[in-house]
Amino acid sequence: MSSNTNARQSWKVPASIISKRTSNPIRAIVDHIKVKPNANKSMISLALGDPTLFGNFKIHQTCTDAVAKQLNSYKSNGYPPSTGYLHARQAVADKFTLPAAPIVAQDVIITSGCSGALDMCIGVLCNEGDNILLPRPGFSLYQTLADSKGVEVRYYDLLPENNWEMDLKQLESLIDDRTATVVMNNPSNPCGSVFRKQHLLDFLAVCERNHLPVIADEIYCDLVFSGNEFFPLASLTTTVPVLAVGGLAKKYLVPGWRVGWIFIHDRNNIFNAEVREGLNSLSQLILGSNSLVQAALPDILHKTDPAFYDETRIQLEANAKLSTDILSKVPGLKVIVPQGAMYVMISIDVAQFKDIANDIIFTEKLLGEESVMCLPGSVFQCPNFIRIVFTSPPEVLQEAYTRMAEFCARHHV
Amino acid sequence: MSSNTNARQSWKVPASIISKRTSNPIRAIVDHIKVKPNANKSMISLALGDPTLFGNFKIHQTCTDAVAKQLNSYKSNGYPPSTGYLHARQAVADKFTLPAAPIVAQDVIITSGCSGALDMCIGVLCNEGDNILLPRPGFSLYQTLADSKGVEVRYYDLLPENNWEMDLKQLESLIDDRTATVVMNNPSNPCGSVFRKQHLLDFLAVCERNHLPVIADEIYCDLVFSGNEFFPLASLTTTVPVLAVGGLAKKYLVPGWRVGWIFIHDRNNIFNAEVREGLNSLSQLILGSNSLVQAALPDILHKTDPAFYDETRIQLEANAKLSTDILSKVPGLKVIVPQGAMYVMISIDVAQFKDIANDIIFTEKLLGEESVMCLPGSVFQCPNFIRIVFTSPPEVLQEAYTRMAEFCARHHV
Repeated sequence: MSSNTNARQSWKVPASIISKRTSNPIRAIVDHIKVKPNANKSMISLALGDPTLFGNFKIHQTCTDAVAKQLNSYKSNGYPPSTGYLHARQAVADKFTLPAAPIVAQDVIITSGCSGALDMCIGVLCNEGDNILLPRPGFSLYQTLADSKGVEVRYYDLLPENNWEMDLKQLESLIDDRTATVVMNNPSNPCGSVFRKQHLLDFLAVCERNHLPVIADEIYCDLVFSGNEFFPLASLTTTVPVLAVGGLAKKYLVPGWRVGWIFIHDRNNIFNAEVREGLNSLSQLILGSNSLVQAALPDILHKTDPAFYDETRIQLEANAKLSTDILSKVPGLKVIVPQGAMYVMISIDVAQFKDIANDIIFTEKLLGEESVMCLPGSVFQCPNFIRIVFTSPPEVLQEAYTRMAEFCARHHV
Repeated sequence: MSSNTNARQSWKVPASIISKRTSNPIRAIVDHIKVKPNANKSMISLALGDPTLFGNFKIHQTCTDAVAKQLNSYKSNGYPPSTGYLHARQAVADKFTLPAAPIVAQDVIITSGCSGALDMCIGVLCNEGDNILLPRPGFSLYQTLADSKGVEVRYYDLLPENNWEMDLKQLESLIDDRTATVVMNNPSNPCGSVFRKQHLLDFLAVCERNHLPVIADEIYCDLVFSGNEFFPLASLTTTVPVLAVGGLAKKYLVPGWRVGWIFIHDRNNIFNAEVREGLNSLSQLILGSNSLVQAALPDILHKTDPAFYDETRIQLEANAKLSTDILSKVPGLKVIVPQGAMYVMISIDVAQFKDIANDIIFTEKLLGEESVMCLPGSVFQCPNFIRIVFTSPPEVLQEAYTRMAEFCARHHV
């Protein structure tokens, strides 16, 4: 029997355009680092934003107990609704509602990690051919998601000399009639910065006069150090519609559990016309996150000892201080002091090094000579910086920084 | 300060085209059923394909123990790789590899449920404007995913008079040079059918002569009843490239856990050119499924007592027989005897009813008069059938079918 004459005539099966334009800038750069670690030195990675790797940041017993309880109930193994169990959405709303930014269960969508939340928020607001404003430096997934959807990326600058505040004038200059939304990340990955209240108000003023809805990535909420304060963006506006995203990953130290959420802050019924329904529609594509963890959310969010949050923060702050203290004394490096999250960006003055032309070469040589791995700022669109994740135990950080200081001295002009 | 003059001039924020074309055919029909259940009769739902709802299908202790072990290890809370933990992929490969369809860990991608697997498979093979062949009747998510991606749906018919075998002639007539792939579902939701080996070989011959790669949805693998046998599609071909999808949901009775997988069967290196890399790229968008369950996969897949699978199957088969025995005696109904899975499709001869014009009216009236809920075939593109999920306890099924028989008698001409 012959084939349908209209059919494909060979076994050439291409991958879709969408899959081809989906790429991870971190992998694109890191996978090209062919240098091997120094076999005579133990490997220390300061590259991964995963606080669970070393055992020093351990989740609270309440969280494991809460999941175990669901496991043993045999009642949370079935399909949750695509937007999440109602009691889970209620628990999240109860935890995060504020007088100045009230939310109820119906304003919460449970997602497959904060990545899933970002995917849905960008997906509901942006069409192919629209543009989106993203922070530079910024978390690389924003670009991956935008590229995948055919949304043009326009970067607005964060200014290291101003504690990585947004360059609002430059940001505003990027806006046109195809600008669908702006992603604002506070506290910031990779910068470790926390925006002042007035800066957020200034940002909201730009959004308001340009009718620009905001995606506020607040996954690091509350992970802020002494002298700084975290303000949820939605609590500072009654007019700008905000989709805020967060999740269990960082605050509860369980990134692998893949439970995130979207808050629909929409006090003027701007999202209600279409966007809320659009989010519900998109939630049906892959049916959300693990039922056991969802069902455990009321216990996780409301029974965890508040001291746990403080301990995490105190430990992170001590590591941040250790990092700043040591590395700010290293000639050729300049530390932008972190104010929160679990990251510090360090500027490399390449002019002070004899054989290090840029951040990628810095990280390659550091790995090859000292077996210390960190990410070059280029993966965050920020050349001649490096990002350090300071969640390793203090003695590991100490060792890594000692090696880095020796490395820098060796390569200094 | 004035706004950027190019900016949007009002707070009209539309939802994206993609979100608007993402819809759930089940919700589109079921949400319009305004009839209330009969308040004098207990509600019985035979509508949801979730075997966990009634407590009669209970997961095996090995599975809960396996997850509890990971929970208590504190070692599986971090980010898994986007394609899944290597040891989890290895465990899946070891479980499902066959001499006639060999797979290794690198051929397995762990996904956020089988829905996530289908999303990625359709996403990697289809471009907007391509077309995809889907079974009619078929699982509605296929259409939801295709619509969302702007992929034209072309339905091939399953023939109830032939145990729901595919109409291969009609299927082949649908193929043209924009046909990207065909979704084959065996055992079938909603049909409860299991394809004979020769039928699968005939199907593969069509795919081969038309160079059509296949997405084989085999989530109900092994849930087959006496006298039938399940053949993994990939085990019957050495030439047609197959992406097979499955997961824990049905066989292990934990749909809420959201752990699925893709098997890349590609013995002639057809997918290797682009598709394998495309799947890796797409996996980075939301970073896969829950780490605890992933890490538990080796125990779940390899330590669960084989008797568990038999018990599930025996219980399902008894329920299938009960359903067939009772409902095939009801005038106006015709049962297409199920061969596997957890579903039975029942034809409604509307000519035999005095006031039931179609399947939607049948389900509405049945709900209103008897408080029995099942899905109209229309949600599966198959009018004048109804789908029954037979996972309820036998006494519940008995009660539901007694009511249905009374209902049919009352409305019979």
